[in-house]
Amino acid sequence: MSAYQDLLAFQRETEALQQVSGRLGWDQETVMPRGAAAQRGEEMAAMEGVLHARRTDPRVGDWLAGIDDAALDTVAAAQMRHIRRAHDRATRVPARLSAELARVTSLAQGAWAEARAADDFQRFAPILAEVIRLRQEEGAALAEGTDYTPYDAMIQDYEPGASAAFLENLFGALRPRLVSLREKLLGAPTPKGLSGTFDVAQQLALSETIAKAFGYDLARGRIDRAVHPFSSGSGQDVRITTRTDAENPFDCVYSTIHEVGHACYEQNIHSDFLLTPLGAGVSMGVHESQSRIYENQIGRSRAFCEYLYRQMRDRFGDIGVDSADAFYAAVNTVHRDYIRTEADEVQYNLHVLIRFDLERQLISGDLPVADLEQAWNERFEADFGYPVNKPSNGCLQDVHWSVGLFGYFPTYTLGNVYAGSLHEALLRDVPQLDEQLMRGDTSGATGWLRENVQQHGGLYEPRELITLACGKAPSEAPLLDYLEAKFGAIYGV
Amino acid sequence: MSAYQDLLAFQRETEALQQVSGRLGWDQETVMPRGAAAQRGEEMAAMEGVLHARRTDPRVGDWLAGIDDAALDTVAAAQMRHIRRAHDRATRVPARLSAELARVTSLAQGAWAEARAADDFQRFAPILAEVIRLRQEEGAALAEGTDYTPYDAMIQDYEPGASAAFLENLFGALRPRLVSLREKLLGAPTPKGLSGTFDVAQQLALSETIAKAFGYDLARGRIDRAVHPFSSGSGQDVRITTRTDAENPFDCVYSTIHEVGHACYEQNIHSDFLLTPLGAGVSMGVHESQSRIYENQIGRSRAFCEYLYRQMRDRFGDIGVDSADAFYAAVNTVHRDYIRTEADEVQYNLHVLIRFDLERQLISGDLPVADLEQAWNERFEADFGYPVNKPSNGCLQDVHWSVGLFGYFPTYTLGNVYAGSLHEALLRDVPQLDEQLMRGDTSGATGWLRENVQQHGGLYEPRELITLACGKAPSEAPLLDYLEAKFGAIYGV
Repeated sequence: MSAYQDLLAFQRETEALQQVSGRLGWDQETVMPRGAAAQRGEEMAAMEGVLHARRTDPRVGDWLAGIDDAALDTVAAAQMRHIRRAHDRATRVPARLSAELARVTSLAQGAWAEARAADDFQRFAPILAEVIRLRQEEGAALAEGTDYTPYDAMIQDYEPGASAAFLENLFGALRPRLVSLREKLLGAPTPKGLSGTFDVAQQLALSETIAKAFGYDLARGRIDRAVHPFSSGSGQDVRITTRTDAENPFDCVYSTIHEVGHACYEQNIHSDFLLTPLGAGVSMGVHESQSRIYENQIGRSRAFCEYLYRQMRDRFGDIGVDSADAFYAAVNTVHRDYIRTEADEVQYNLHVLIRFDLERQLISGDLPVADLEQAWNERFEADFGYPVNKPSNGCLQDVHWSVGLFGYFPTYTLGNVYAGSLHEALLRDVPQLDEQLMRGDTSGATGWLRENVQQHGGLYEPRELITLACGKAPSEAPLLDYLEAKFGAIYGV
Repeated sequence: MSAYQDLLAFQRETEALQQVSGRLGWDQETVMPRGAAAQRGEEMAAMEGVLHARRTDPRVGDWLAGIDDAALDTVAAAQMRHIRRAHDRATRVPARLSAELARVTSLAQGAWAEARAADDFQRFAPILAEVIRLRQEEGAALAEGTDYTPYDAMIQDYEPGASAAFLENLFGALRPRLVSLREKLLGAPTPKGLSGTFDVAQQLALSETIAKAFGYDLARGRIDRAVHPFSSGSGQDVRITTRTDAENPFDCVYSTIHEVGHACYEQNIHSDFLLTPLGAGVSMGVHESQSRIYENQIGRSRAFCEYLYRQMRDRFGDIGVDSADAFYAAVNTVHRDYIRTEADEVQYNLHVLIRFDLERQLISGDLPVADLEQAWNERFEADFGYPVNKPSNGCLQDVHWSVGLFGYFPTYTLGNVYAGSLHEALLRDVPQLDEQLMRGDTSGATGWLRENVQQHGGLYEPRELITLACGKAPSEAPLLDYLEAKFGAIYGV
């Protein structure tokens, strides 16, 4: 065997072990007995130890040295790009620093949960400062000898090829139009919401119907319940979770569609890439583009609401709105709120932009942790028009920073920007889209996304992939145009 | 750290990874999407590769060489006994042979399933001969330089300390009295069975009630459905499965009690032994003794039937028998049948004895595979009094030999013998047992078993453990006396 084949065979086992580790995570959030947490912690740590040893295995360096990428075909070259990137990352970070980060973020996650419950940022501040110090050190190691800043280097873990400067430019163009739109919408009367009784078993049955309607393959997946919905796994075993709220059936429906977007991306990757570095979604941003376009541009469209309204009337009887138009408005209501994960399409990105701007300053050192709460509250009021009422509704609401995720937040909004650009191209290429969606037929939309985005897995770099799919580079304009047109029409502003 | 501490820390990670591998097996049999089989095969193989590398890690040999067992306390010495035994086994078998066995048994399992479906032993014979040849080679490597025969050496994997000569002696004393008892019982009228409708959801609810009544801790376990019931996991995460048959509620009830016996053994091991070699059941025989004493000596006792009869009447209404006595007889009916796994308490061991005698001859080479079917059929007719009607009811009924399990079958009957001896001691030590069981209170029985057997995990060798619990060495007499008295009374023979 050649060095390339040896390396791929080794990598295939690593990918298989990563799937195992991911499935342990699924198990923990869905079916694990509540008394098994301590033992599970040791099991997860042992798996992480195995994976870390493989990522830093000296044989990988030897194989890499023996491979001439220029002699490889497109697919093999793409495999090598992923493997070299992961190997470079693994060997740049000293084992001591990795272990210290694992230890401190584990403590910090607990401290964050306590601080949030107590609504007291100062309880969290000291250990957050420690997390940031370690991530700064890691970022410096990752950036050394490259053109990246430490924060740029962190972004590469989630969105290869993106940089803070690129994102600043993109998000800078989003912010003023989003602020202006939310001001207009919140000045207009709020559409009527649903009312009625929403049997939980019926919500789950509806979820499954809709998941299938979006092409989710239950022979290679399953739907369970979890406190925080997620999707997990690649290839032949891609599972999603959802949740139910007896008062609000949209929570279940749109959580399901969002996770189905993630899951269909994984399920639709070309089977030749199974258990290889190309066999998973290429970046967080592209992943989020799929979940968001399923959830919002398709799932919250006027046409799909025609179908969903009928489905919900059939299952729940009187739901308090008496036309598909009124239902569409209820689906797309914009509320005053504080919480990112519960935000509507318009305000969601404003939440993300706060975090992106603040975390850059935390990592560069321009913003001391002691000043974070005040900086958050000032920025929130500037963009949203009202003050934060308590830290759990402010800078303590997200788990991300406690577990060391810096450079991750911007991929949420990047995903929305990608979704906007893909939606523009989809409307151009599939003229019968609305007519299909009114019948609950998503095949035109999901077929186009499978063909142009999903099947490729990690074959192209993220922006290259979206550019190929759209026929032009992604930009913020289609998303903004779509939001202004859609919500302007619903709210008559 | 000392070599002992280093070794235990390494071993703890290995135990954690073994739990992960076991949980993948649970997942596969309960919740895995049906289209995930190929990928799952690679995931399991990758985990097996990790575990194999750890078992044969050269550092283990170095640590072992640096430890003076004589200087250790009882618990540490017991840990070392398990670790040295596993290391000796792993290093005796050449990697080439392990890989070949894995490859051939995987094929053989498929060939066995096809041959059984086609009821054609000759389709299975050639690959079974290959499995036997490889196991003979492995047995010879395991026995080299010891007093063991190759078959004895195989037994050590499942029942450390047992030998073929010991088992021959024990089983030789069982056979004539069992044959004679089954003849008498099958000559008498068969008690009336249940009739009625047995709602599957109610069966599962009853299962859970009974599992809790036997002390199964659902905070560290869960009950799911599977085609073939099993229990899996150790420590804080011990799961069981059961199955339902709308015609026969006893299938669900007694499968559950059997698996609860296995699971309670694992759950009740002293928490100090968590994720160490002492933290799991000590042998297959002792494990089966716990499942069998829960299922039979306790679960099928006249006293427990008083409770169970009330439970079933409450849940299912008229069940076709009108007294606890009649219910007890229905629970303990003896039928003509061919299948080991469906056999009653009396005939079960006769099924096992056939396999024990034939597999010894297969491994010694005295019985050519080509003659197996005929040898099976002759022996079956001699012990059961009627001929085998087809291979799927005869020598093709069990999967064990196809996957290379030789030396495993006798542990089923050894477990029953242990259960008989433990039951005798339990009756001696817990005089209020029947009075408790009539109320569905198993605490006297399960408390005694936890105290005398289960909590010790792997601390003692199997026979030593049973001898300590009973105050004398185990023998076949208590089991035979119990069976003759119980079934003699039910059948009036």
